[in-house]
Amino acid sequence: MPAAVSTFEELSLAGLKDIYDAEHQITEALPKMTEAATSADLKQAFQNHLEQTRNQIKRLDQVFEHLGQKAERKPCVATKGLIAEANEHLKETEKGALRDAALIESAQKVEHYEIASYGTARTYAKQAGQAEVARLLEETLQEEEATDRLLTKIAESVVNPKAAAQG
Amino acid sequence: MPAAVSTFEELSLAGLKDIYDAEHQITEALPKMTEAATSADLKQAFQNHLEQTRNQIKRLDQVFEHLGQKAERKPCVATKGLIAEANEHLKETEKGALRDAALIESAQKVEHYEIASYGTARTYAKQAGQAEVARLLEETLQEEEATDRLLTKIAESVVNPKAAAQG
Repeated sequence: MPAAVSTFEELSLAGLKDIYDAEHQITEALPKMTEAATSADLKQAFQNHLEQTRNQIKRLDQVFEHLGQKAERKPCVATKGLIAEANEHLKETEKGALRDAALIESAQKVEHYEIASYGTARTYAKQAGQAEVARLLEETLQEEEATDRLLTKIAESVVNPKAAAQG
Repeated sequence: MPAAVSTFEELSLAGLKDIYDAEHQITEALPKMTEAATSADLKQAFQNHLEQTRNQIKRLDQVFEHLGQKAERKPCVATKGLIAEANEHLKETEKGALRDAALIESAQKVEHYEIASYGTARTYAKQAGQAEVARLLEETLQEEEATDRLLTKIAESVVNPKAAAQG
């Protein structure tokens, strides 16, 4: 039996299908995280990120189209694990600043998964000489990095000081 | 029943136990990844990272000691998912440049999990005024970021061109 992934193109495509699934999982998780958040800044950040994520899915649709491939989800077990961890945090904490800190922690881990994934996918596209695909993936990568920085800012300036003051 | 994590200190501690478990899982996964790699540069990078990871575990031992806490592992489901994904990649590819590319992809996702985890843990320690703990965590964070950059370099300069040339 030949290996399931035997060309560079197949490897790139597997990565795109993985992140396509991850993004869908994230759109399903974000409303729950928004609901669980207390800080207005954090609620707003999650809400904006949901819109952004939907747009990133559309951008991936464009990527698949450019490549002449069907947009398909490949179940992403890593994101499943990350979201399971986020749910664990929700069970362990009560609503308030401490849970907000935990939500940011979980969200930043998901952001970093995406940063690694889009970074690799963009690098593969460059290697394959697919300039437009690389550009689309780079655009999303920069959005994920900006979201990560925004979450750090909310944690440091608003949420962590409140959580620490509670004891 | 009170929440399992009801103070900022408990939240910080839960994060440290999570990454303590993640590091142990990584020391178990790295020998297999080193064995699976073909590129001499990649093998060397994984081997060095195993040594580094063992040292990072010792650094976490110091962190727990500073905090007057017992060094304990809290099962990290996210890392379990990331390693499951790495194993999937091994099953999907045959030994060679393409598998090397997939190994780097998996390893960078793990690095980014650690970057997010140590980033948060360091920020919590700063918030709590634990300067020495923050310094130790920052040291590891910088090592993880350097490893991530090294893997990108190996991918771009050696592995991806070879993998793409194979078809």
